[in-house]
Amino acid sequence: MGEKPVVGIVMGSDSDLPVMSTAAAVLEEFGVAYEITVISAHRTPDRAETYAKSAADRGLRVIIAGAGGAAHLAGVIAAYTELPVIGVPVLGKALDGADALYSMVQMPPGIPVATVAINGAKNAGLLAVEILGVADETFRRKIQEYKRKLAQEVEAKAARLETIGWRAYLAEKDKK
Amino acid sequence: MGEKPVVGIVMGSDSDLPVMSTAAAVLEEFGVAYEITVISAHRTPDRAETYAKSAADRGLRVIIAGAGGAAHLAGVIAAYTELPVIGVPVLGKALDGADALYSMVQMPPGIPVATVAINGAKNAGLLAVEILGVADETFRRKIQEYKRKLAQEVEAKAARLETIGWRAYLAEKDKK
Amino acid sequence: MGEKPVVGIVMGSDSDLPVMSTAAAVLEEFGVAYEITVISAHRTPDRAETYAKSAADRGLRVIIAGAGGAAHLAGVIAAYTELPVIGVPVLGKALDGADALYSMVQMPPGIPVATVAINGAKNAGLLAVEILGVADETFRRKIQEYKRKLAQEVEAKAARLETIGWRAYLAEKDKK
Amino acid sequence: MGEKPVVGIVMGSDSDLPVMSTAAAVLEEFGVAYEITVISAHRTPDRAETYAKSAADRGLRVIIAGAGGAAHLAGVIAAYTELPVIGVPVLGKALDGADALYSMVQMPPGIPVATVAINGAKNAGLLAVEILGVADETFRRKIQEYKRKLAQEVEAKAARLETIGWRAYLAEKDKK
Amino acid sequence: MGEKPVVGIVMGSDSDLPVMSTAAAVLEEFGVAYEITVISAHRTPDRAETYAKSAADRGLRVIIAGAGGAAHLAGVIAAYTELPVIGVPVLGKALDGADALYSMVQMPPGIPVATVAINGAKNAGLLAVEILGVADETFRRKIQEYKRKLAQEVEAKAARLETIGWRAYLAEKDKK
Amino acid sequence: MGEKPVVGIVMGSDSDLPVMSTAAAVLEEFGVAYEITVISAHRTPDRAETYAKSAADRGLRVIIAGAGGAAHLAGVIAAYTELPVIGVPVLGKALDGADALYSMVQMPPGIPVATVAINGAKNAGLLAVEILGVADETFRRKIQEYKRKLAQEVEAKAARLETIGWRAYLAEKDKK
Amino acid sequence: MGEKPVVGIVMGSDSDLPVMSTAAAVLEEFGVAYEITVISAHRTPDRAETYAKSAADRGLRVIIAGAGGAAHLAGVIAAYTELPVIGVPVLGKALDGADALYSMVQMPPGIPVATVAINGAKNAGLLAVEILGVADETFRRKIQEYKRKLAQEVEAKAARLETIGWRAYLAEKDKK
Amino acid sequence: MGEKPVVGIVMGSDSDLPVMSTAAAVLEEFGVAYEITVISAHRTPDRAETYAKSAADRGLRVIIAGAGGAAHLAGVIAAYTELPVIGVPVLGKALDGADALYSMVQMPPGIPVATVAINGAKNAGLLAVEILGVADETFRRKIQEYKRKLAQEVEAKAARLETIGWRAYLAEKDKK
Repeated sequence: MGEKPVVGIVMGSDSDLPVMSTAAAVLEEFGVAYEITVISAHRTPDRAETYAKSAADRGLRVIIAGAGGAAHLAGVIAAYTELPVIGVPVLGKALDGADALYSMVQMPPGIPVATVAINGAKNAGLLAVEILGVADETFRRKIQEYKRKLAQEVEAKAARLETIGWRAYLAEKDKK
Repeated sequence: MGEKPVVGIVMGSDSDLPVMSTAAAVLEEFGVAYEITVISAHRTPDRAETYAKSAADRGLRVIIAGAGGAAHLAGVIAAYTELPVIGVPVLGKALDGADALYSMVQMPPGIPVATVAINGAKNAGLLAVEILGVADETFRRKIQEYKRKLAQEVEAKAARLETIGWRAYLAEKDKK
Repeated sequence: MGEKPVVGIVMGSDSDLPVMSTAAAVLEEFGVAYEITVISAHRTPDRAETYAKSAADRGLRVIIAGAGGAAHLAGVIAAYTELPVIGVPVLGKALDGADALYSMVQMPPGIPVATVAINGAKNAGLLAVEILGVADETFRRKIQEYKRKLAQEVEAKAARLETIGWRAYLAEKDKK
Repeated sequence: MGEKPVVGIVMGSDSDLPVMSTAAAVLEEFGVAYEITVISAHRTPDRAETYAKSAADRGLRVIIAGAGGAAHLAGVIAAYTELPVIGVPVLGKALDGADALYSMVQMPPGIPVATVAINGAKNAGLLAVEILGVADETFRRKIQEYKRKLAQEVEAKAARLETIGWRAYLAEKDKK
Repeated sequence: MGEKPVVGIVMGSDSDLPVMSTAAAVLEEFGVAYEITVISAHRTPDRAETYAKSAADRGLRVIIAGAGGAAHLAGVIAAYTELPVIGVPVLGKALDGADALYSMVQMPPGIPVATVAINGAKNAGLLAVEILGVADETFRRKIQEYKRKLAQEVEAKAARLETIGWRAYLAEKDKK
Repeated sequence: MGEKPVVGIVMGSDSDLPVMSTAAAVLEEFGVAYEITVISAHRTPDRAETYAKSAADRGLRVIIAGAGGAAHLAGVIAAYTELPVIGVPVLGKALDGADALYSMVQMPPGIPVATVAINGAKNAGLLAVEILGVADETFRRKIQEYKRKLAQEVEAKAARLETIGWRAYLAEKDKK
Repeated sequence: MGEKPVVGIVMGSDSDLPVMSTAAAVLEEFGVAYEITVISAHRTPDRAETYAKSAADRGLRVIIAGAGGAAHLAGVIAAYTELPVIGVPVLGKALDGADALYSMVQMPPGIPVATVAINGAKNAGLLAVEILGVADETFRRKIQEYKRKLAQEVEAKAARLETIGWRAYLAEKDKK
Repeated sequence: MGEKPVVGIVMGSDSDLPVMSTAAAVLEEFGVAYEITVISAHRTPDRAETYAKSAADRGLRVIIAGAGGAAHLAGVIAAYTELPVIGVPVLGKALDGADALYSMVQMPPGIPVATVAINGAKNAGLLAVEILGVADETFRRKIQEYKRKLAQEVEAKAARLETIGWRAYLAEKDKK
């Protein structure tokens, strides 16, 4: 990560890291320089403000924010920056993720948050790459390549299933 | 309202005023000095911060915050103040109020919001008075008195219904 | 719209137009060339495929897709393009918008949809501008300017409310 | 399975196989020739199109499609074929299956998906047999026979429970 | 309707008729002989049993059942017949249709109900035609033709919208 | 109502009367002596206690309690009496009746509330009659008779619909 | 159980027995003769009909019916009997019990089901005893006694907690 | 705890103690004298009444009430006291906590309950301290201090994560 980060990944608590680290892994896979840290909208509001206000000037182009429960982090970050903010609702113990999802996606007119699936941090990473692709065609091509591979993986599994039948396939999976 | 306000009522949009004004009406009824204004957590985050950080020093003792959708306002205010913050989830067009409710009530450990019913601004006002009653016995007595009146109103209705029967009672209500 | 469109707005039915046109209005306000049309993921699947596959080559940089019910349009478009796709769940008669929201946001790993609020087409437009801002600093500045105005509008309303009080303010609103 | 398949079972991911294989088992039980494979509406959209467009000509008469989350597979298949499509919403980690259910069942006018219970792949298989029974009375008779057996199984359990009492019955079940 | 009906449409109450009649209209459009009546699973259980038990022998090939609330009708019919049963959950005043949907779709293993969207009676009619198409290729071709027309309608609207722009299009719609 | 009441109908607010009066109407139809009044679990808790504690001694045999929102009334009454308590969740403005339903039905072990449908006061009345039927066979016979009439009404509507067809039937209904 | 049963406990599947047996245990505790068996509304509809139609004549006074998913059993039983029917929604794997709850409680006018909490079979047993108490004062007195014991148990726990403090209390519980 | 308690913690069942004890722990941390006990709104209603009616006179200033399911405890307590009542909805096995949340928060006008997150007893403790801070500035300062520490903890974690990277951080967490 010698390069200056262009994507910032923030999360409300370090307990969100197992989910949010998949966004980081995707960015590494695409060769996107990123930074990753913990910011609580409620416990460290000043830190959220400073981070968001300085983000564009520090060279960030996209921010990914993950949080659970009353998941305000993405909205609070979005309030302070003109960069696109991607929200990842993190599944908690109650309400099956509906609390985090609604808190992130139902933003009022004026301040959007680009919300992905509950625990969908991997897609947050991919969306960030797609957004960077608006400025840099290389990323668009890499996404095309990535999708081709995704398709090939599905097709390989399909072929295997068609060849050996579902009973053998299930048995194989159980062994893994 | 010549007195210095001890309760601050804030709302995310002036479209919340028909709901939130019932909190103000209750405070007036109890003789509590208050202030009321519009603060958007997302459109005016600096204003939210300034308001919340200065609230205690300006003499406020309780803050009531109402908002709909991804209703972050109460949580954002709570992040910046040591005063108790009462949240009023405001009903919107989708999700039947569950979005505002979950966004307000599901706050993370460390930063509580005292949430009342969806559109329950009247109760927010009463809760504020009860909280002031912790410091000032006059309010406790006024709440007792208020509850007595509430009970009397219910009992008067009950007596009327028992006397004239439900058909006549419904007819009377329809005339009003 | 003499310029080549860089944003494509598509919707599943022309009954979504009252909602989705607010995205178009925002793009006009920001001087973003766009195109707008109707594509049904289910009734015109070939059209969806052709549209999405050709989008990048035709110069589009962002696609906004709105739909209600089993709202597959955004996901189907996203399957065929490497551009960022913004989804707008449109409120229907049943399930309070939860059907459209879940159908859009819960995309599987590999194919993100940047979902905004139910009926949140205005924010979809703004998010598109923010995304274009990754490539063109002019848009970042315009968003900053837009946010300043948003804040000023809130502050003007706040000032008016503080000045005339909530009773007069409500009366004024009723007249409008 | 030497015969030409008349039912196609497809699923969005091989992680759906433990659920979806119960549809295959039912079809085998009824002597219905079938094929089973993996098709992702989002990762392999072309494959979905090719599969669905060729299905009728290849001799399929019913398609069963299972998927979780934003479960578009059944709808996407239905868009491209005039065959009846049965949808199986697969339970995921968040939202308790409501996401997959709503994404499948809330199809717009024109393109139905015959949705069964969450994880209800067994019933999808039975429904396929019932549908084949429209053309072939043998299947109708087999379904009658199957239902008779189902009833007998329930009655056998009922008789056992009535005979030995619930305590002994629970103890017997625990041993199994 | 001189021909012997092959599709039976039943509904739990005549208050469901405005919704359920769209299934009848579709069947007429496709030239499918049908019968339509009211059967309450709870108020006329014997009638439900008689209807369902005799359905196949009377020549019916598919049954469409619509009901709201605790919508048991489709399941009760399905319990007594080997024909495919299509369920239409009808929207009521509370719970936004989730009650009828869950009551229909969550059938236990052994007795499927092919559930369509809330108030989706039109699709129930189309699904019935698709199912009849398993035995009679004419219906498959008619469905193909129907889908072509659906696509053309969407394309015509799309073309109009692209030609005159969204403002004029909205104005035109308002006039209608 | 010269007789001593055996059923008590209570409701949390006189705004519940339009719903709850249908229970009274049913009881009158069955010749059951009843009383009806307003008791708020929260505004008149002492009244609730007195009412419930004295109910059995005053000759009541069943209590019907209706309330909306945090609908505690039925549970509070049940806490103080050994009589069966029937709960009617009343639909409010938010959460589509789920709040009242959950508050009534999810009672802890030890203190049951017999909950009927949201706004289902008519069924509450019928359930009360069925319960009285445990002690008095006359009521069981009246319920049988009532059900016969219900069935006849459905059958009459069915016959009319079958005779004149759905278009004429809808037209007839519109006139009414 | 030499006496003729007055309460019938039925359940849709023997997998419901661990839940439903708590109703039986309560009835035994109160000395109420009961019978318990398995009846599937969908797999053994004739059995459901026969059971319900003969129930009153066989001496039953109350029926308790438990089922999960599309939980029609209670409603189907209620359709065929003039006895009060108590419904126990049984928790399944998806939708968190809302499917069974809604399917049971949302019965149409005319055919009530007295619904208790999800998995609330113990309360179903108690409610049955309360209902029998309408005819037999002994049961009313036993319920009073039962409630006294319940209160004593709570008070004993409360006293223990107050005496030893929460840390010791938690430690004691952990040992058990 | 030699001092006279100013906060009362009550819970509906001793099974709520693992959740509710975190409120007690917080109060100890802030040096607030409290009492803690079990009161069931339904099983010990008289106890609830006595407790609530005497609370203010016994010196309590805030009551914290936790319960699950049809969580009436907080509302019942609030009905009998003029003190502020904080409600903690406790997560149960069904409905994902929505039942307890709705039962607590949706209180009718006149009787507020200050509801915190599902299982949010820690925040209930903090809210109680904030409320006491209205009368005693010491608590306000302690809350400020507490928030500073919270922020420092987040910042320490953030610094560690930034220093060692997410892979090492996750590995460290796994070891703990």
